[in-house]
Amino acid sequence: MSGDLPIVDGSTRLYVIIGHPIAQVRSPQTYTPRFRAKGLNALMVPVHVAPDQFDVTVRGLKEIVNLEGIIITVPYKSRVIPFADRLLPTGEKVGAINAMRREQDGSWTGDMFDGRGLTRTLRDDGHVIEGKRVMLIGAGGAGSAVAVAVADAGASAITIFDVDTAKAKALVARVSAAYPGRRVVAGAADAKGHDIVINATPIGMAKGDGMPADLGPVDPALLVIDVIMKPEPTPFLRHAQGCGCRTVDGRAMLEGQIEEVLGFFGLGS
Amino acid sequence: MSGDLPIVDGSTRLYVIIGHPIAQVRSPQTYTPRFRAKGLNALMVPVHVAPDQFDVTVRGLKEIVNLEGIIITVPYKSRVIPFADRLLPTGEKVGAINAMRREQDGSWTGDMFDGRGLTRTLRDDGHVIEGKRVMLIGAGGAGSAVAVAVADAGASAITIFDVDTAKAKALVARVSAAYPGRRVVAGAADAKGHDIVINATPIGMAKGDGMPADLGPVDPALLVIDVIMKPEPTPFLRHAQGCGCRTVDGRAMLEGQIEEVLGFFGLGS
Repeated sequence: MSGDLPIVDGSTRLYVIIGHPIAQVRSPQTYTPRFRAKGLNALMVPVHVAPDQFDVTVRGLKEIVNLEGIIITVPYKSRVIPFADRLLPTGEKVGAINAMRREQDGSWTGDMFDGRGLTRTLRDDGHVIEGKRVMLIGAGGAGSAVAVAVADAGASAITIFDVDTAKAKALVARVSAAYPGRRVVAGAADAKGHDIVINATPIGMAKGDGMPADLGPVDPALLVIDVIMKPEPTPFLRHAQGCGCRTVDGRAMLEGQIEEVLGFFGLGS
Repeated sequence: MSGDLPIVDGSTRLYVIIGHPIAQVRSPQTYTPRFRAKGLNALMVPVHVAPDQFDVTVRGLKEIVNLEGIIITVPYKSRVIPFADRLLPTGEKVGAINAMRREQDGSWTGDMFDGRGLTRTLRDDGHVIEGKRVMLIGAGGAGSAVAVAVADAGASAITIFDVDTAKAKALVARVSAAYPGRRVVAGAADAKGHDIVINATPIGMAKGDGMPADLGPVDPALLVIDVIMKPEPTPFLRHAQGCGCRTVDGRAMLEGQIEEVLGFFGLGS
C-alpha cells in the first residue's frame, strides 16, 4: 500500500495473479503502474485460490469478459496447463506456464517466462551463456524453466542435479528432446567443470536452511546464481561470495521477465 | 480514472461488482475510497459476465479466498439467488438480491438494498412514508425492491401498475404475503388518491422515451420519485416539476444504500 494509482471504475480491464499463498506476490504493484504508464485503465489483482478449488476458480476467471490475462504462480504453473487452449514454444518445452492471455477469439494462450527472465537479465548485465557449461541444482518448476532457458540461450552443456534422481532424469529427457545434440546429463552437484552454477530449489529461503548442495570451495571464476530472493544474500550466494565468485540473486528472474510478459500481453514498449 | 488510490498488492482484499454490461457501474469508484478511508487494503473490481457464462463465473468467484463480497447489478439480481446459502429478510421478501458477503464459515449470505437505499434517502431528506399512499409504476426488479421497502417503511396503501398485469399481480401477492393486512392492490397508473408516485421502470432513460405512464396534470402536493438517473430531469420528473410537485431522482436509491451495504459487509461506521 505505497504509491498512488488512478481509481478503478467500470471500464477497468483486469489482469489477475493466481497462487497459494498470495500475500507475498509482487505482480500487482509491479504491473499495474506499467499498465497505467501506457495509458491503460487496467489493474493486476491478487487472487488467492486454494488447491481444492483451483479448477472451478480458473474456469470462472477465464469467462470474465473484461479479464485480459492471468499470471500463474506457485503451486499452479503445471496444473494450469489444461486450461490453456494452446502453449507457445517455451511453455511447451518447460511443461509449465506462468502467464496466459485471452485472444481475440476468446481462446487462451499460455507461455513460461521464468527462465527467460533470468537469461534476459544475465544478458543485459553482460554475462555470456552461449558456449558455457551450466550446473543446475533443482529439477522442479523453476529448474525446468531455467534448464530450457539456458539451453535456449546456447549453453554448451547442462548438468542437472536433484535429490529426486527420477526428477532430474525426466528434466534431462525433456531438455534433450527440445534441444537435440546438446550435452544434457543428470549428475552430482559438483561445480567442477562448469562455468555457471544455478540454485533453482527453494532451499535457503526458510530460517535455518543450509545450502541446496554442499559445493565446497569453488573457483572464483564461477558465476553463481540463486533464484531465491530472500534472505539477502542467500546461504548459497554468501558461500560463493566467500569464494570470490560473482553472484546473481533471485530478482534477476523476476525483473527480467516483466518486459517479456508485457509483450506477451500485447503491451510491449 | 479520476482521483488517486493506494496501490494494490498481494494482501489486497477483493470485492467485485458483477453485471452485463459493466462499464456504466459506479460501485468501484464509490466503494473503494470508502474501504481505504477505513484503513482497509481492499478494492471493488468490475467484473463483466455474459449471461451464458454467469453460472460458471459466479461459482469460480465464490471460491476466491481473498474475495469478501459481491455486488450484483442488472440483469443478475434474481438469477444470483441460488448462489446464496441464505437470504436476509429483505432479500427473501423481494426475491432478488444486490449484495452477497462471505461468512466466517465460507458460506454466502445475500440481501437486497435497492429499495432500502431509496427509503433511507427519503427519510434523511425529511420525506415521510409512514401512513402514505404510494402509486408504484413498474413491477420488475427495481419495482419489487421499492414495493417491499415502502411497505417496510409503513406506507398505508400501495397501488402497483405494470403494463404486464400478471407481473403487477405477482408483486401484489408477494408484498401482501410479507406485510399482511396492508392495502396492496394492482391498478391503473393514476396518481389520484395517492401521496407519492414512484417510477420504477427504465422508461425515460433511452432517447425518445416518453413517460412510463400518462398521469396527466397532478396535484402539486404529490411527491414524485424516479429510480432513473439520466437524463436530468427524466421526462417523468420534468412533467411533475411542471405541475409544481417536489421530485426525487435516481441518485437517491443509489446513494442511500452505500452505508447499508458497507454495514452488511461488516464495515459500518
